[in-house]
Amino acid sequence: MSGEPSEIEEGLSFAPRFDANGLVTCVVTDARSGDVLMVAHMNDTALRRTIESGEAWYYSRSRKALWKKGETSGHVQRVLEIRMDCDQDAVWIKVEQHGAGACHTGRRSCFYRVVPVGQAGHVALEFRDAERTFDPGAIYK
Amino acid sequence: MSGEPSEIEEGLSFAPRFDANGLVTCVVTDARSGDVLMVAHMNDTALRRTIESGEAWYYSRSRKALWKKGETSGHVQRVLEIRMDCDQDAVWIKVEQHGAGACHTGRRSCFYRVVPVGQAGHVALEFRDAERTFDPGAIYK
Repeated sequence: MSGEPSEIEEGLSFAPRFDANGLVTCVVTDARSGDVLMVAHMNDTALRRTIESGEAWYYSRSRKALWKKGETSGHVQRVLEIRMDCDQDAVWIKVEQHGAGACHTGRRSCFYRVVPVGQAGHVALEFRDAERTFDPGAIYK
Repeated sequence: MSGEPSEIEEGLSFAPRFDANGLVTCVVTDARSGDVLMVAHMNDTALRRTIESGEAWYYSRSRKALWKKGETSGHVQRVLEIRMDCDQDAVWIKVEQHGAGACHTGRRSCFYRVVPVGQAGHVALEFRDAERTFDPGAIYK
Protein backbone atom coordinates (compact mmCIF):
# COMPACT_ATOMS: atom_id res chain seq x y z
CA MET A 1 0.00 0.00 0.00
CA SER A 2 3.03 2.24 0.31
CA GLY A 3 2.74 5.15 -2.07
CA GLU A 4 -1.06 5.29 -2.03
CA PRO A 5 -2.58 8.50 -0.68
CA SER A 6 -4.14 6.81 2.35
CA GLU A 7 -0.82 5.28 3.37
CA ILE A 8 1.13 8.46 2.68
CA GLU A 9 -1.33 10.52 4.72
CA GLU A 10 -2.43 8.12 7.44
CA GLY A 11 0.45 5.68 7.71
CA LEU A 12 3.61 5.81 9.77
CA SER A 13 5.94 4.95 6.92
CA PHE A 14 8.48 7.66 6.29
CA ALA A 15 8.04 8.19 2.55
CA PRO A 16 9.14 11.69 1.56
CA ARG A 17 7.80 12.72 -1.83
CA PHE A 18 10.65 14.48 -3.56
CA ASP A 19 9.76 16.68 -6.52
CA ALA A 20 11.12 16.41 -10.07
CA ASN A 21 14.37 17.94 -8.85
CA GLY A 22 14.63 15.52 -5.95
CA LEU A 23 13.72 18.09 -3.31
CA VAL A 24 11.24 18.66 -0.51
CA THR A 25 10.44 22.08 0.94
CA CYS A 26 11.64 22.71 4.47
CA VAL A 27 10.14 25.33 6.79
CA VAL A 28 12.42 26.29 9.65
CA THR A 29 11.00 27.86 12.79
CA ASP A 30 12.72 29.12 15.91
CA ALA A 31 11.72 26.67 18.65
CA ARG A 32 11.63 29.47 21.22
CA SER A 33 9.90 32.35 19.44
CA GLY A 34 7.93 30.30 16.92
CA ASP A 35 9.00 32.70 14.16
CA VAL A 36 9.67 31.34 10.71
CA LEU A 37 13.42 31.76 10.20
CA MET A 38 13.75 30.54 6.63
CA VAL A 39 12.36 28.32 3.90
CA ALA A 40 14.87 26.02 2.24
CA HIS A 41 15.07 22.75 0.34
CA MET A 42 16.37 19.31 1.22
CA ASN A 43 17.32 16.44 -1.02
CA ASP A 44 17.35 12.89 0.29
CA THR A 45 20.89 13.20 1.64
CA ALA A 46 20.20 16.50 3.39
CA LEU A 47 17.05 15.11 4.97
CA ARG A 48 18.81 11.92 6.16
CA ARG A 49 21.76 13.84 7.57
CA THR A 50 19.43 16.22 9.39
CA ILE A 51 17.53 13.31 10.96
CA GLU A 52 20.69 11.43 11.91
CA SER A 53 22.78 14.32 13.17
CA GLY A 54 20.16 16.59 14.69
CA GLU A 55 21.71 19.51 12.83
CA ALA A 56 20.15 21.12 9.77
CA TRP A 57 21.46 20.26 6.30
CA TYR A 58 20.00 21.67 3.09
CA TYR A 59 20.41 21.52 -0.66
CA SER A 60 21.15 24.78 -2.44
CA ARG A 61 19.34 25.04 -5.76
CA SER A 62 21.50 27.96 -6.90
CA ARG A 63 24.83 26.36 -5.95
CA LYS A 64 23.60 22.83 -6.72
CA ALA A 65 25.28 21.61 -3.57
CA LEU A 66 24.56 20.05 -0.22
CA TRP A 67 25.33 22.39 2.64
CA LYS A 68 25.28 22.28 6.39
CA LYS A 69 23.69 25.38 7.88
CA GLY A 70 26.42 27.25 9.70
CA GLU A 71 29.35 25.61 7.91
CA THR A 72 30.61 29.07 6.93
CA SER A 73 28.97 31.35 9.48
CA GLY A 74 29.05 29.06 12.51
CA HIS A 75 25.32 29.72 12.83
CA VAL A 76 24.33 26.08 13.05
CA GLN A 77 20.80 24.97 13.75
CA ARG A 78 20.18 22.30 16.36
CA VAL A 79 17.02 20.44 15.39
CA LEU A 80 14.59 19.84 18.23
CA GLU A 81 11.70 18.43 16.23
CA ILE A 82 11.03 17.29 12.66
CA ARG A 83 7.51 17.00 11.27
CA MET A 84 6.26 15.78 7.89
CA ASP A 85 3.10 17.16 6.33
CA CYS A 86 0.11 15.15 5.17
CA ASP A 87 1.37 14.38 1.68
CA GLN A 88 5.01 14.17 2.79
CA ASP A 89 6.38 16.77 0.41
CA ALA A 90 7.09 19.38 3.07
CA VAL A 91 9.10 19.22 6.27
CA TRP A 92 8.82 21.50 9.30
CA ILE A 93 11.81 21.64 11.61
CA LYS A 94 11.91 23.48 14.92
CA VAL A 95 15.43 24.60 15.65
CA GLU A 96 17.61 26.23 18.21
CA GLN A 97 19.42 28.82 16.11
CA HIS A 98 23.03 29.21 17.21
CA GLY A 99 24.82 32.47 16.59
CA ALA A 100 23.26 35.72 15.58
CA GLY A 101 20.86 34.73 12.88
CA ALA A 102 19.63 32.48 10.08
CA CYS A 103 19.55 34.90 7.15
CA HIS A 104 22.55 35.51 4.91
CA THR A 105 21.62 39.21 4.87
CA GLY A 106 22.62 39.43 8.54
CA ARG A 107 19.22 39.14 10.18
CA ARG A 108 17.71 36.67 12.58
CA SER A 109 14.98 35.63 10.08
CA CYS A 110 14.72 35.85 6.29
CA PHE A 111 11.23 37.31 6.70
CA TYR A 112 12.07 40.93 7.61
CA ARG A 113 9.59 42.72 5.35
CA VAL A 114 5.80 42.78 5.41
CA VAL A 115 3.26 43.32 2.66
CA PRO A 116 0.44 45.51 3.98
CA VAL A 117 -2.83 43.57 3.90
CA GLY A 118 -5.84 45.09 2.18
CA GLN A 119 -4.08 46.96 -0.61
CA ALA A 120 -5.19 46.85 -4.21
CA GLY A 121 -2.94 47.94 -7.06
CA HIS A 122 0.55 49.10 -6.18
CA VAL A 123 2.07 47.33 -3.21
CA ALA A 124 5.17 48.40 -1.28
CA LEU A 125 6.99 46.39 1.35
CA GLU A 126 7.70 47.68 4.85
CA PHE A 127 10.61 46.62 7.04
CA ARG A 128 9.64 44.66 10.16
CA ASP A 129 12.17 43.14 12.62
CA ALA A 130 14.77 44.09 10.02
CA GLU A 131 17.63 45.17 12.29
CA ARG A 132 20.87 43.38 11.53
CA THR A 133 22.14 41.02 14.20
CA PHE A 134 25.45 40.35 12.45
CA ASP A 135 27.58 41.75 9.66
CA PRO A 136 27.29 39.38 6.69
CA GLY A 137 30.33 40.97 5.04
CA ALA A 138 32.52 39.90 7.96
CA ILE A 139 31.22 36.32 7.89
CA TYR A 140 30.74 35.45 4.23
CA LYS A 141 34.10 36.28 2.73
CA MET B 1 18.07 48.32 -10.21
CA SER B 2 14.89 46.32 -9.76
CA GLY B 3 15.61 42.63 -10.10
CA GLU B 4 19.19 42.82 -8.80
CA PRO B 5 19.93 40.88 -5.63
CA SER B 6 20.56 43.97 -3.54
CA GLU B 7 17.25 45.53 -4.55
CA ILE B 8 15.34 42.27 -4.14
CA GLU B 9 16.85 41.73 -0.69
CA GLU B 10 17.24 45.25 0.65
CA GLY B 11 14.64 47.23 -1.25
CA LEU B 12 11.00 47.88 -0.53
CA SER B 13 9.78 46.98 -4.02
CA PHE B 14 7.34 44.12 -3.97
CA ALA B 15 8.90 41.84 -6.59
CA PRO B 16 7.87 38.22 -5.99
CA ARG B 17 10.14 35.76 -7.79
CA PHE B 18 7.83 33.12 -9.22
CA ASP B 19 9.43 29.81 -10.23
CA ALA B 20 9.30 28.17 -13.65
CA ASN B 21 5.70 27.17 -12.93
CA GLY B 22 4.75 30.69 -11.88
CA LEU B 23 4.55 29.87 -8.19
CA VAL B 24 5.94 30.99 -4.85
CA THR B 25 5.94 28.83 -1.72
CA CYS B 26 3.63 29.96 1.06
CA VAL B 27 4.07 28.99 4.72
CA VAL B 28 0.92 29.39 6.78
CA THR B 29 1.13 29.73 10.54
CA ASP B 30 -1.61 30.05 13.14
CA ALA B 31 -1.31 33.61 14.45
CA ARG B 32 -2.29 32.48 17.93
CA SER B 33 -0.34 29.26 18.49
CA GLY B 34 2.50 29.94 16.07
CA ASP B 35 2.16 26.41 14.69
CA VAL B 36 2.73 25.80 11.01
CA LEU B 37 -0.68 24.85 9.63
CA MET B 38 0.25 24.09 6.04
CA VAL B 39 2.64 24.77 3.17
CA ALA B 40 0.99 25.71 -0.11
CA HIS B 41 1.69 27.56 -3.34
CA MET B 42 0.49 30.85 -4.77
CA ASN B 43 0.56 32.12 -8.31
CA ASP B 44 0.42 35.84 -9.04
CA THR B 45 -3.38 35.93 -8.92
CA ALA B 46 -3.58 34.02 -5.63
CA LEU B 47 -0.98 36.29 -4.06
CA ARG B 48 -2.73 39.47 -5.24
CA ARG B 49 -6.14 38.27 -4.09
CA THR B 50 -4.72 37.32 -0.69
CA ILE B 51 -3.18 40.77 -0.29
CA GLU B 52 -6.29 42.60 -1.46
CA SER B 53 -8.93 40.56 0.33
CA GLY B 54 -7.13 39.59 3.53
CA GLU B 55 -8.26 36.00 2.99
CA ALA B 56 -5.97 33.22 1.83
CA TRP B 57 -6.02 32.12 -1.82
CA TYR B 58 -3.74 29.44 -3.24
CA TYR B 59 -2.92 27.66 -6.46
CA SER B 60 -3.33 23.89 -6.52
CA ARG B 61 -0.59 22.16 -8.49
CA SER B 62 -2.54 18.88 -8.61
CA ARG B 63 -5.83 20.45 -9.70
CA LYS B 64 -4.13 23.21 -11.70
CA ALA B 65 -6.60 25.70 -10.30
CA LEU B 66 -6.85 28.79 -8.16
CA TRP B 67 -8.69 28.13 -4.93
CA LYS B 68 -9.81 30.09 -1.94
CA LYS B 69 -9.06 28.31 1.31
CA GLY B 70 -12.40 27.36 2.85
CA GLU B 71 -14.44 27.62 -0.35
CA THR B 72 -15.62 24.03 0.20
CA SER B 73 -15.08 23.48 3.90
CA GLY B 74 -15.93 26.96 5.19
CA HIS B 75 -12.56 26.88 6.96
CA VAL B 76 -11.38 30.22 5.62
CA GLN B 77 -8.17 31.84 6.76
CA ARG B 78 -8.18 35.50 7.73
CA VAL B 79 -4.73 36.89 7.02
CA LEU B 80 -3.28 39.04 9.79
CA GLU B 81 0.21 39.50 8.39
CA ILE B 82 2.08 38.76 5.15
CA ARG B 83 5.86 38.63 5.00
CA MET B 84 8.21 38.11 2.07
CA ASP B 85 11.57 36.41 2.51
CA CYS B 86 14.95 37.82 1.53
CA ASP B 87 14.94 36.63 -2.09
CA GLN B 88 11.17 37.06 -2.44
CA ASP B 89 10.40 33.51 -3.53
CA ALA B 90 8.66 32.53 -0.29
CA VAL B 91 5.76 34.10 1.57
CA TRP B 92 4.87 33.65 5.23
CA ILE B 93 1.29 34.42 6.23
CA LYS B 94 -0.02 34.49 9.77
CA VAL B 95 -3.67 33.58 9.81
CA GLU B 96 -6.69 33.25 12.00
CA GLN B 97 -7.95 29.81 11.01
CA HIS B 98 -11.75 29.70 10.94
CA GLY B 99 -13.52 26.41 11.50
CA ALA B 100 -12.02 23.24 12.80
CA GLY B 101 -8.81 22.96 10.88
CA ALA B 102 -6.57 23.62 7.91
CA CYS B 103 -5.77 20.08 6.77
CA HIS B 104 -7.94 18.17 4.32
CA THR B 105 -7.38 15.04 6.43
CA GLY B 106 -9.51 16.59 9.18
CA ARG B 107 -6.79 17.96 11.44
CA ARG B 108 -5.90 21.42 12.63
CA SER B 109 -2.47 21.31 10.96
CA CYS B 110 -1.02 19.26 8.10
CA PHE B 111 2.01 18.50 10.29
CA TYR B 112 0.60 15.77 12.54
CA ARG B 113 3.53 13.31 12.40
CA VAL B 114 7.07 13.62 13.68
CA VAL B 115 10.30 12.03 12.55
CA PRO B 116 12.36 11.03 15.60
CA VAL B 117 15.64 12.95 15.61
CA GLY B 118 18.90 11.04 15.94
CA GLN B 119 17.95 7.89 14.06
CA ALA B 120 20.15 6.29 11.45
CA GLY B 121 18.83 3.72 9.01
CA HIS B 122 15.15 2.86 9.17
CA VAL B 123 12.92 5.74 10.18
CA ALA B 124 9.29 5.50 11.28
CA LEU B 125 6.93 8.39 11.83
CA GLU B 126 5.02 8.96 15.07
CA PHE B 127 1.68 10.71 15.38
CA ARG B 128 1.77 14.05 17.24
CA ASP B 129 -1.26 16.36 17.64
CA ALA B 130 -2.98 14.01 15.20
CA GLU B 131 -6.49 13.97 16.66
CA ARG B 132 -9.15 14.84 14.11
CA THR B 133 -11.00 18.10 14.69
CA PHE B 134 -13.51 17.51 11.90
CA ASP B 135 -14.76 14.72 9.66
CA PRO B 136 -13.33 15.31 6.18
CA GLY B 137 -15.81 12.86 4.67
CA ALA B 138 -18.69 15.03 5.79
CA ILE B 139 -17.14 18.19 4.36
CA TYR B 140 -15.44 17.17 1.13
CA LYS B 141 -18.20 15.38 -0.73
